[in-house]
Amino acid sequence: MKGKFIVLEGSDGSGKSTLALKIKDYFIKKGYEVEITREPGGTDISEKIRELLLDINNKEMDYKTEALLYAAARAQLVSQKIIPWIKEGKIVISERYVYSSLVYQGFGRNLGINEVKKINDFATSGIKPDLVILLDVDPEKGLKRKLSINGGDRLENEDITFHKSVYEGYKKLKSLFPEIVTVNAEGTIEEVFEDIKILLRRLP
Amino acid sequence: MKGKFIVLEGSDGSGKSTLALKIKDYFIKKGYEVEITREPGGTDISEKIRELLLDINNKEMDYKTEALLYAAARAQLVSQKIIPWIKEGKIVISERYVYSSLVYQGFGRNLGINEVKKINDFATSGIKPDLVILLDVDPEKGLKRKLSINGGDRLENEDITFHKSVYEGYKKLKSLFPEIVTVNAEGTIEEVFEDIKILLRRLP
Repeated sequence: MKGKFIVLEGSDGSGKSTLALKIKDYFIKKGYEVEITREPGGTDISEKIRELLLDINNKEMDYKTEALLYAAARAQLVSQKIIPWIKEGKIVISERYVYSSLVYQGFGRNLGINEVKKINDFATSGIKPDLVILLDVDPEKGLKRKLSINGGDRLENEDITFHKSVYEGYKKLKSLFPEIVTVNAEGTIEEVFEDIKILLRRLP
Repeated sequence: MKGKFIVLEGSDGSGKSTLALKIKDYFIKKGYEVEITREPGGTDISEKIRELLLDINNKEMDYKTEALLYAAARAQLVSQKIIPWIKEGKIVISERYVYSSLVYQGFGRNLGINEVKKINDFATSGIKPDLVILLDVDPEKGLKRKLSINGGDRLENEDITFHKSVYEGYKKLKSLFPEIVTVNAEGTIEEVFEDIKILLRRLP
């Protein structure tokens, strides 16, 4: 069996975690070994970087520092987990990947998509997913859902203008990266997953 | 008065901290306000990144992660401290700067000087020092001195081959960056500081 790398992208509250589990079940039933990971995080070192990034007390964080920390966490995850898993023939599902940095830091923080991409090309050694599923949900709806659950981390607490620019960023990104497929994520989880299954069946 | 930015570079145990204090005194006597900082560190966020970098338990750290974390700590220090200090007309003395990353990660870790420079150009917004003093001391002598003091952090505990390649890296770097001036640092602190004073007097 050949390893595959599937990424879920989308605004906060778009259903990435729930759908990652459903994709996992789908492949387990087909006899694959499956690993789920999330960004930033997924290794001991990356989780420590995640704490720095999402700590609501780190309000002074420079946007460039933020972009570099995301890339650092990603470099560790890719080298320590994702590359070995793919080599072992596993299905690897990641909640977020480079695309999140391009959108949140490149567009949302206005650092420029090319600048952020260069740093991430270095971080990932150019490892690309086989499929990127962009869960499309109105940013206000998604955010309200997220804040009602946990009060929100440092990034979730940015104002709605930031989250709207992230949403617009995802739309622009689609035209630059053909591996991104948009799925309408405003229906029920079952409805959304029906659409995702069509994409999974098409995987080479 | 015009702000100035002076960087001390050199292997572990080359005397950077002691000489930074002597340079500080020199400028305070001339009526300047002086700030000393160190890398990685110098801001709350950068010190937290420093902890990750130097923690002897983080043995699994990927070299790219390491390079990105140094750049992240530097981005925060430059934007939050160094740029404002220079604008206020202060003398800023930093123990280590971009050159350390070029040498330790570019040469020592073999990531390539150009790759590491690109990331750091992003991190520093291109802020360059007025003077870079490279303290030249035999790497074995310097390292022995350092390990005898504190047992050594994660990077200091790398084997002597790594430290020798760092030393060679510094020598190569000099030919690429004309702002670097080498000072023989094997004499007494007073002897070394006499040579440094000549450089300080020449500052525009």
